[in-house]
Amino acid sequence: MASKRAIDVVEVGPRDGLQIESVFIPTEIKIGLINNIAAAGVKHIEATSFVSPRAVPQLADAAEVIAGIDRSTGVRIQTLVPNARGAERAVASGIDEVMLFVSASDSHNIRNMNRLTMETMAGFPDVVTIARAAGAGVHGAVATAFGCPFEGEVTFESLFRVVDHYVDLGVININLGDTTGMATPPIVSRTCEALKKRFPAIQITLHFHNTRGLGLANVMAGLESGITRYDASLGGMGGCPYAPGASGNICTEDLVHLLHEMNFSTGIDLDRLIAAAKGLETIMGRQLPGQVMKAGPRLTLHGSEAVGRAVG
Amino acid sequence: MASKRAIDVVEVGPRDGLQIESVFIPTEIKIGLINNIAAAGVKHIEATSFVSPRAVPQLADAAEVIAGIDRSTGVRIQTLVPNARGAERAVASGIDEVMLFVSASDSHNIRNMNRLTMETMAGFPDVVTIARAAGAGVHGAVATAFGCPFEGEVTFESLFRVVDHYVDLGVININLGDTTGMATPPIVSRTCEALKKRFPAIQITLHFHNTRGLGLANVMAGLESGITRYDASLGGMGGCPYAPGASGNICTEDLVHLLHEMNFSTGIDLDRLIAAAKGLETIMGRQLPGQVMKAGPRLTLHGSEAVGRAVG
Repeated sequence: MASKRAIDVVEVGPRDGLQIESVFIPTEIKIGLINNIAAAGVKHIEATSFVSPRAVPQLADAAEVIAGIDRSTGVRIQTLVPNARGAERAVASGIDEVMLFVSASDSHNIRNMNRLTMETMAGFPDVVTIARAAGAGVHGAVATAFGCPFEGEVTFESLFRVVDHYVDLGVININLGDTTGMATPPIVSRTCEALKKRFPAIQITLHFHNTRGLGLANVMAGLESGITRYDASLGGMGGCPYAPGASGNICTEDLVHLLHEMNFSTGIDLDRLIAAAKGLETIMGRQLPGQVMKAGPRLTLHGSEAVGRAVG
Repeated sequence: MASKRAIDVVEVGPRDGLQIESVFIPTEIKIGLINNIAAAGVKHIEATSFVSPRAVPQLADAAEVIAGIDRSTGVRIQTLVPNARGAERAVASGIDEVMLFVSASDSHNIRNMNRLTMETMAGFPDVVTIARAAGAGVHGAVATAFGCPFEGEVTFESLFRVVDHYVDLGVININLGDTTGMATPPIVSRTCEALKKRFPAIQITLHFHNTRGLGLANVMAGLESGITRYDASLGGMGGCPYAPGASGNICTEDLVHLLHEMNFSTGIDLDRLIAAAKGLETIMGRQLPGQVMKAGPRLTLHGSEAVGRAVG
């Protein structure tokens, strides 16, 4: 990651994409999916979440999933943990990184975790202690970092308050979550610049949802601001609980295609990633939002069998 | 259009979106759709095409569609014309602008029009004469401007050859068509810069397809290069004849949402445009790719009825 043209792509589909699925995906299928993604060269995978199985039944098999992952590829496995209990389970399972999460806006945090933002954060020191004792890395996620579906705009003050707290705990890997797709390129630019200025030591990961079609436009703004780490979901799997039919996370293979076309390196084999995405469509039994798996990378050429007319 | 922050959005769905539909859409439905789009404030609509009804049966009712459009909104109506005969029919119908079209790559032009690029262009002087005699404006479209599905990369030389020919005919409104979604942000930037340098007098319109998910990222690159006119299709209706399941043109209401969020003015009422897109979904009887019509503009707030969990 020394080169300034290298970008870290973090696959979050097994957690953020799957969690909204109402039909339980068998554990072996999840493990196979994660192993396929790692085999394509993805070095960071958010494999599952140690939240309450009651809240997210799809991820109730978190420990079994982690246990089944082939670690010989060198992939680093991260998981969400909401509290000390989740952290104990996560480190016992052998993950590499834990991801704390809280919403910048109180009203979303209440909806999501039934308490105020600062009440959630009050539990974080214990989680950090548990993770560090186990040698696991710690990331701090800020949901609704670019807007809240209940409050509207999220001020820099609200964002700074959460990041301040993370930095006080020594957590400098900060994940900015565009939880419901409210980020726009100008907001991404302003937010990244403001955070970098106020917290020069933090490493920012951008987590965009394509809810309003702006996911990759926002990545462009992030790249322009020098951000080198992005979350994405294979096939664009996932959705938004507040907008039926809307897209979920930005699509991993579409992101990788864009990054490679922009001359960034990811270490990922795009063809193998596309194959994994097609496999995921088969698993889900439906078409997923990803575009590149349908059309192929841009220099996929067509022969004389293509007789359709493309006027304009 | 005097302000530098004003962007012209050209609705091409009634032509580029509909032409791929195999089931004929009744003429009255097409007219109602166009009138709804114009009523939302869209000032430029590519309403249909005067190509051979045999080649594109969906647009066989071109003259009837034009005749039915309510012109009291001041909307300017443009149509594709392939040759002198099409131009005669187009100007007789009362359109405001004709759009010549040819592919930058010979192999795509042969597939599309059964002749070489320069053979197609040889017929353009007659079309220009007919249009001018009728007081119609003339635009020159270049298909496969950012890549060809048969040849791969399209060189600047190929592109310059076509634009040279247009400029010789006095056609300075140049439409760059990303016919099969092969444009990327760096290619858009390089192409626009090269064309503006070589042809300082031309006005560029960018016509992106979202075939590989890069449509709005490419718009970002176009805006950065100072391009102020973009084609788009309501609801993102349309497709790609070479990639089943892939998206068509960029989505008009998603584009307008992005432009407004970036503080550009379009003169378009986004809420009315979204209503027209929802009406189009009803007409087509299926979900269309547009995202903003599903999630609403970014500050669409949710109340306590939204009980879903949005972790991350």
